[in-house]
Amino acid sequence: MFERVAFIGLGLIGSSLARAMRHYGIARSLYATSRNRETRQKIQNLHLVDAVFDSARDCVKGADLIVLATPVTAFPSIMAEIKDSLGKGAIIMDVGSVKKTVIETISPHLPENIHFIPAHPIAGTEHSGPEHGFYELFQNRWCILTPTEKTNHKALQKIYDLWQKCGSKVTKMSPEHHDQVLAITSHLPHLIAYTIVDTATQLESDLQQEVMQYSAGGFRDFTRIAASDPEMWRDIFLTNRDGVMDILKRFKGDLERLESAIEKGDGDTLFNTFTRTRAIRKGVIDAEQA
Amino acid sequence: MFERVAFIGLGLIGSSLARAMRHYGIARSLYATSRNRETRQKIQNLHLVDAVFDSARDCVKGADLIVLATPVTAFPSIMAEIKDSLGKGAIIMDVGSVKKTVIETISPHLPENIHFIPAHPIAGTEHSGPEHGFYELFQNRWCILTPTEKTNHKALQKIYDLWQKCGSKVTKMSPEHHDQVLAITSHLPHLIAYTIVDTATQLESDLQQEVMQYSAGGFRDFTRIAASDPEMWRDIFLTNRDGVMDILKRFKGDLERLESAIEKGDGDTLFNTFTRTRAIRKGVIDAEQA
Repeated sequence: MFERVAFIGLGLIGSSLARAMRHYGIARSLYATSRNRETRQKIQNLHLVDAVFDSARDCVKGADLIVLATPVTAFPSIMAEIKDSLGKGAIIMDVGSVKKTVIETISPHLPENIHFIPAHPIAGTEHSGPEHGFYELFQNRWCILTPTEKTNHKALQKIYDLWQKCGSKVTKMSPEHHDQVLAITSHLPHLIAYTIVDTATQLESDLQQEVMQYSAGGFRDFTRIAASDPEMWRDIFLTNRDGVMDILKRFKGDLERLESAIEKGDGDTLFNTFTRTRAIRKGVIDAEQA
Repeated sequence: MFERVAFIGLGLIGSSLARAMRHYGIARSLYATSRNRETRQKIQNLHLVDAVFDSARDCVKGADLIVLATPVTAFPSIMAEIKDSLGKGAIIMDVGSVKKTVIETISPHLPENIHFIPAHPIAGTEHSGPEHGFYELFQNRWCILTPTEKTNHKALQKIYDLWQKCGSKVTKMSPEHHDQVLAITSHLPHLIAYTIVDTATQLESDLQQEVMQYSAGGFRDFTRIAASDPEMWRDIFLTNRDGVMDILKRFKGDLERLESAIEKGDGDTLFNTFTRTRAIRKGVIDAEQA
């Protein structure tokens, strides 16, 4: 499908995609770069790609697909660095968790004849770094593409096919809608999980030790979510601020309502709410089986 | 270990304990009752116990161990019903998730020569009802006993041994401390999960459908927690109100701090917080391996 793919950033997602491309024979050769010397060394040692470059500019030369797989706030400086080294007709794809801001950031830097396809594979684990990637990461997981009216159809189709070959279920939606949906399904849950685990970090040390010990009652699940990559998540909250603030406002209102029910001893409100939420679980399970 | 064990309530926890008692040969005979006719029929059909009774009073006759495994707000009326039918020297054990209120509720009803041991096995799944129990539920999970100065030592030791035979790691702490620890590790996480899933129930139906579809980014974990038994959780919040309110207040303060960081674009606060929370995850994993 591709002659030469250049990965800018090769963490969990990037390295998993590189592995999948090799596994499924999607690219003839794979190049990668990372800002971090230690990461570059890891990539070398793991033999994940054919060549590792110190600079993004050198990495993208001759590539027909460039994958932006760094935290999203690094995109502007990367684009500034690589824009004069891109081959005619090359496709740039990002894999960031936020789409509207990313498109606004990248579009002004795009040279003529270069196609940008924004993609978001909804996949990940609590572990970050190239050593934790695996080629099956995207299997049966959704990948959302967020084309705009300027998007080149042929390039879009090629990226669509790429993700399908990696085992993903691929769908398309507008960048704005993507950011709204993800604010609810992913960004707010992460913010809440980070908060509750942060609350635990501030407990006196004996109590904190016990909280870790008896975490099986629910807290444990939050610690897994709150172990996600700090830099990536900082960038998500900085770039989807409006989407997150909107749903956070609703969440806080709902929390006030339950808090007030507990304070007043209003068991009916609690019972009715906890019954309603069960239906959503059923919907999630049905959606997965569909 | 026991001649005859009477279960008042036989849902997920009760039926799992009954199965474990059979599996490990802990009791010669098992009796059970439930307020609910349908549940009694299920217990019959599943052959979980030797006899099913319509009334708690009949169920406890001749039993040397009575297990209270209903939602905790039912305990006062159950105690009033059974107190004149208890055999001399019998042990009553509850398995509720809240301990201080339960002890305050049950103690005034206790006849002479009857020993009450408050226990809390930290185990469960999102499924409720006797058909979902399994004997391995308690294996390698903590069971917290919360004796007071009035607790009979011999009865306490017997209950300690019972849980160990079921595969649990058993520990003791004061009821007040238990309720504080559990408010953090379990009650607040459930309240938050119920809230965020409830926020989703109020979305317009197209968006709600998408939220269920793309739930893999974090929301999915919350739906599992928010599918827990509504009656049991109503009772937990009604009976550990102070513990929950205390930690909820701290949580809300921490959430305001992160919200303000997002609003101001303060990436350093976000990054530092998200780095700190990773250490707690490590602590949880270390505690499990210890």
